[in-house]
Amino acid sequence: MEIFRPEDVTAEQPENMPGVKIRWVIDKKRGAENFAMRVFEVEPGAATPLHDHWYEQEMYILEGRGLMVGTQGEHPVEPGHVLWVAPYERHQIKNTGKGTLKFICCVPQKKP
Amino acid sequence: MEIFRPEDVTAEQPENMPGVKIRWVIDKKRGAENFAMRVFEVEPGAATPLHDHWYEQEMYILEGRGLMVGTQGEHPVEPGHVLWVAPYERHQIKNTGKGTLKFICCVPQKKP
Repeated sequence: MEIFRPEDVTAEQPENMPGVKIRWVIDKKRGAENFAMRVFEVEPGAATPLHDHWYEQEMYILEGRGLMVGTQGEHPVEPGHVLWVAPYERHQIKNTGKGTLKFICCVPQKKP
Repeated sequence: MEIFRPEDVTAEQPENMPGVKIRWVIDKKRGAENFAMRVFEVEPGAATPLHDHWYEQEMYILEGRGLMVGTQGEHPVEPGHVLWVAPYERHQIKNTGKGTLKFICCVPQKKP
């Protein structure tokens, strides 16, 4: 059993995502073989790229305001929202608020 | 893509967990084949049973105050805490606060 805060885990700052920090809070390094929990922090005005991938995402908005972009347009998101993104579904999340947009994003660790 | 709130999903009230509600917010019904996201609500004074199982848990505390019980004793938990429970590790969570203890708990959907 391990109990800690996202801030205890070093943030990655991917080159293709300016203004976005990702903390892999639970992953294989901790013994999690099946799926990982990440915590994202997106600065005001920043966004993830519009992209897709083989894996699904299970997300929960913790703080801030934003827009989730999909093939059907843009959808406002706020704390307490659960987001399901299916495998290969195109998506992007934008921070449209004044503070950090913070969310949990869980993904599988291996292709089935 | 689906965006909703935990409250939009019907809560289960397991017989062996009085005072505990579980909402399977993302699972196979939504197309998630690999792992599920659940949201738990534990009433003040209530607890999950002390138990273990083959699967790991990846948890995030959203609201309330509680104690996570493990083989090494009791650990206070509060909003913003990430909890990792390894496969077959004995655990229990108790609400020791005055309000609902609410947390995310993700688990795999199939035995590897």
